[in-house]
Amino acid sequence: MFHCQVYVISFLLLIIMNVNSVTSFNKTQSKDIHLEAPHLSDKIRSNRPRLKPLANVNRSRTTPTIVTNQNVFNPCNGTYIKTNGTTCGLKEIMIGRCHDYQYVKHSLFLTNQSIKNCTKLYEVFESAVRYKSYCNMNMSTYERYFDLALDGVHVINRAMFWSGTYAITHTYSGNGRNYVTLEDTLAAAMVDGLIWCGKENDTEGFDFVSCPYTCKSNQWADLAFWGLASKTFAQLAVGEIYVVLNGSQAHGKSAFRNNSFFSSFELPNLRRNGTYRVTKVNTLVLHSPDEIAVEKCGEKSLLDLEKLVRSHGFDYACKDDPEELILIMCSDKWEARECQIAREVLRQTWNIKLYGKSNSNRNSLSLIVFSCLFFIQYYSLKIISG
Amino acid sequence: MFHCQVYVISFLLLIIMNVNSVTSFNKTQSKDIHLEAPHLSDKIRSNRPRLKPLANVNRSRTTPTIVTNQNVFNPCNGTYIKTNGTTCGLKEIMIGRCHDYQYVKHSLFLTNQSIKNCTKLYEVFESAVRYKSYCNMNMSTYERYFDLALDGVHVINRAMFWSGTYAITHTYSGNGRNYVTLEDTLAAAMVDGLIWCGKENDTEGFDFVSCPYTCKSNQWADLAFWGLASKTFAQLAVGEIYVVLNGSQAHGKSAFRNNSFFSSFELPNLRRNGTYRVTKVNTLVLHSPDEIAVEKCGEKSLLDLEKLVRSHGFDYACKDDPEELILIMCSDKWEARECQIAREVLRQTWNIKLYGKSNSNRNSLSLIVFSCLFFIQYYSLKIISG
Repeated sequence: MFHCQVYVISFLLLIIMNVNSVTSFNKTQSKDIHLEAPHLSDKIRSNRPRLKPLANVNRSRTTPTIVTNQNVFNPCNGTYIKTNGTTCGLKEIMIGRCHDYQYVKHSLFLTNQSIKNCTKLYEVFESAVRYKSYCNMNMSTYERYFDLALDGVHVINRAMFWSGTYAITHTYSGNGRNYVTLEDTLAAAMVDGLIWCGKENDTEGFDFVSCPYTCKSNQWADLAFWGLASKTFAQLAVGEIYVVLNGSQAHGKSAFRNNSFFSSFELPNLRRNGTYRVTKVNTLVLHSPDEIAVEKCGEKSLLDLEKLVRSHGFDYACKDDPEELILIMCSDKWEARECQIAREVLRQTWNIKLYGKSNSNRNSLSLIVFSCLFFIQYYSLKIISG
Repeated sequence: MFHCQVYVISFLLLIIMNVNSVTSFNKTQSKDIHLEAPHLSDKIRSNRPRLKPLANVNRSRTTPTIVTNQNVFNPCNGTYIKTNGTTCGLKEIMIGRCHDYQYVKHSLFLTNQSIKNCTKLYEVFESAVRYKSYCNMNMSTYERYFDLALDGVHVINRAMFWSGTYAITHTYSGNGRNYVTLEDTLAAAMVDGLIWCGKENDTEGFDFVSCPYTCKSNQWADLAFWGLASKTFAQLAVGEIYVVLNGSQAHGKSAFRNNSFFSSFELPNLRRNGTYRVTKVNTLVLHSPDEIAVEKCGEKSLLDLEKLVRSHGFDYACKDDPEELILIMCSDKWEARECQIAREVLRQTWNIKLYGKSNSNRNSLSLIVFSCLFFIQYYSLKIISG
């Protein structure tokens, strides 16, 4: 056995030297180019309002608190000043996105009868909000808009819901080419990332200076758009649906929360009967690199979710971190510790691909030992960090 | 030595059994959820016309061949029919994207003076093309449009050019957040993916049925927009620039081609003098997974590129497949053979992350041997496939 150990150790030393030569070769070749981290997701965060616990919401409609702004200038005319009010060009952006959605991005899916009149859609939206007080809005404010925009739409086996995973879910859904999120539907795509609020007794009818986002007297105002959007989208989902949850939530938040849009507006509105019913809820739980895994499938709040889903009569499945999504997470956070081994493996794989057989004996051996050493190192770190 | 081999083989067998148990555990856990491949890039391909070898282009302006369409219906009014003509809603899309670009996507970068008037921009664009014959266009047709849209813009150390790598470059540029491609500038973003062509003696002034894209008498017509766009963008690049080339080109195409937009319009127009000059050209050569590496840095056409770049007085660096970009390529083509090892490594890393110390001894050992076996397997395949 002693001979064997010496043999193995000499072999390892030989290989380590070889690995170093490969590594330094790469470094020499690449030292001149500094690249920025990708930060792939162009959809960084949602503009959905945060939900307060619904139990605290006063469901009766009350007299609105009218927010009057002391400034009466329009920051969109003349010199532009960034505000927290209605997005400048709201009308043009909505009408433009509507055409873009139908004639460019989704033109392949269109059939003759499904083309919506974009100007009409905007007018219906505008009539619900312009010249109106923000705090007067409720869950029926945008009903006509959603009826019109989502008329005839069914999302079969491709509906994807998210909670706490906005950026990665949208990168993965691929603007509706892979899966369809709420924000990939026409009704929501037209306003995703925009801010708007009506203003009474005002020539513009929109408040371009500041949108309240908190009506003490009527918390339904905050939910008027995105609450109804979530509800309507859930009603369109058919067959198997996907729910992408965040298993690395900080500050004691759970992956599945009672006061999330998903549990408040989506889960209760999934169709349980008829031809267009939902059959199964596929839950994907993501754990971001460099963040602690707080909850996994079959644990804590995910047990509650399973019970709830099954009580609705749907099948349930849960998967922690599908590889496709780990790859996207690592593309986005490629400097994360947990992505380093895979990154090095890819580097070495591509080195074999590129530098081929000429020095492939050395490379492949290096590759084997390099990755072994990496894993040992990673495992040691794991033990040290607990 | 015999003892040693037996020892090693028994150890391997033990571990392989362990690996199988880990693998089957994963399979049991995940068998219920089938996921689609991501296909991340929402920008699949460019609508830039293909360049013919410039030597064959007749540079003198000649009498245009007017393309007359026998159908006179407008496929955008009433029942929509998808055609190869001007994109329906061209005006609304361009004006909408202009507002979206300035007030939503890039609002952080805006200073007071840099807001462009979107309606004015569209009008300048329209006046260059509407009611005009497509084949009458030339490299000065859109001069006013670019002057107006790109006025005051400089892209410092972030300009990214591409040739044969449209999708991945745009995923990586992140809509201008990481790097700035031509298509991330206002002038090009307004029309990216759209089709348009003017029509003489027509009430609409646009041909909504069919755009020619080939004028035998005047090949400059095809380059009128994207040729000038490329030239103008190159003139705005400052400091270090990036060029993403395709080292896996099929059909005998080279990574750097004399008749590419990059060599015809971009490289010759980079500023060589003054404060806003280009200092260095960083070339990134990509080799797609599952495709043969045809050219690497320092080989074939990339040698020509280096000579050309240095003859212009710029510094030059070249890197094959930066890891950031390999990760994106594998996110997009996660089923590719060359991505499998990294994918398995990520799976095992996340298993350690999730299932922690409880069975981590077994896992980490499995992980080490699993990857070793994978590499041996990969290397054997590499030898077999040549």
